[in-house]
Amino acid sequence: MPTIMVEGPPIKEIERKRQLVKKLTDVAVEIYGIKHITVLIRENAPENVGVEGQLIIDRHKQSSNR
Amino acid sequence: MPTIMVEGPPIKEIERKRQLVKKLTDVAVEIYGIKHITVLIRENAPENVGVEGQLIIDRHKQSSNR
Amino acid sequence: MPTIMVEGPPIKEIERKRQLVKKLTDVAVEIYGIKHITVLIRENAPENVGVEGQLIIDRHKQSSNR
Amino acid sequence: MPTIMVEGPPIKEIERKRQLVKKLTDVAVEIYGIKHITVLIRENAPENVGVEGQLIIDRHKQSSNR
Amino acid sequence: MPTIMVEGPPIKEIERKRQLVKKLTDVAVEIYGIKHITVLIRENAPENVGVEGQLIIDRHKQSSNR
Amino acid sequence: MPTIMVEGPPIKEIERKRQLVKKLTDVAVEIYGIKHITVLIRENAPENVGVEGQLIIDRHKQSSNR
Repeated sequence: MPTIMVEGPPIKEIERKRQLVKKLTDVAVEIYGIKHITVLIRENAPENVGVEGQLIIDRHKQSSNR
Repeated sequence: MPTIMVEGPPIKEIERKRQLVKKLTDVAVEIYGIKHITVLIRENAPENVGVEGQLIIDRHKQSSNR
Repeated sequence: MPTIMVEGPPIKEIERKRQLVKKLTDVAVEIYGIKHITVLIRENAPENVGVEGQLIIDRHKQSSNR
Repeated sequence: MPTIMVEGPPIKEIERKRQLVKKLTDVAVEIYGIKHITVLIRENAPENVGVEGQLIIDRHKQSSNR
Repeated sequence: MPTIMVEGPPIKEIERKRQLVKKLTDVAVEIYGIKHITVLIRENAPENVGVEGQLIIDRHKQSSNR
Repeated sequence: MPTIMVEGPPIKEIERKRQLVKKLTDVAVEIYGIKHITVLIRENAPENVGVEGQLIIDRHKQSSNR
């Protein structure tokens, strides 16, 4: 029953998603002792995430300007 | 006020979405006795969902190989 | 795999929770054609929910004053 | 640490997203007294949202028919 | 329809919750141009939140030891 | 920025929560290459979770009757 929702940036390589699901599930199985774990990967576009009041897309622009 | 979020696979036919919203709302109205129900349908790509440590996209490949 | 999260007010009677889970699941099974449905009921205290800018707890007070 | 998730309709102009993140963050910083706030904007297609049992996409059609 | 979910630490004073809901709603009304906004305040116990791999409850202990 | 929300049954021992947060964070740091990870543990009472149409609390009763 446990469900893990991961809010993060987009992941291009499917192998990385495979690893993310595999490893998060292993942790949950170990801690909860329950085998049926669901993982939902949410890919948030950098224009839809704000950190400390600023869109990620704007923070990256600033960084690359430096 | 009650809000229902449904995490599931993509739904192609809009009529099925219509039915999903209609019927989930009917249940919530009946149980809560509140008319204003919001339903959010989330369509998760099979490469973004893991069940028992494996991406849905990989589980389907295995099934079709059998 | 589909997971339904229901954000609503507290539900006192367990039988109502039983009905909520049973009926939401029936809808999801019918629409998705998938048997393994998880439902999470979230009970939100009236002081933790705001509608149109006002806490539910304050709205109720106003109503009962009328 | 506080995280704000906003479920709403799609927002076309990035400047509006910028304002949304900036202003929600200002509120959270003021109330919680914590500087590190994350905001996630979720854009829900009108065919994936139901209000009072009806898809937004159908409600809009009705309105424009009037 | 827009719904704002705020994940933060517990808030003791109801007046602060009142302000949080009022101000977040004002922002959402301004940006979306929609009046019907719902806000859900979620209060997370410091033993249920981890930042950079450490429970908040442990981080606070460390701080007070200094 | 990545945030991991874990919906599971209650966890009594704080050391298990500590391990859950530590290990989920390690996985996320490895896959995303981002250090600032937040984990929210949600503890769902067995009367608030339904699996295949049945409350967990009822499933457990049935099991212990066998």
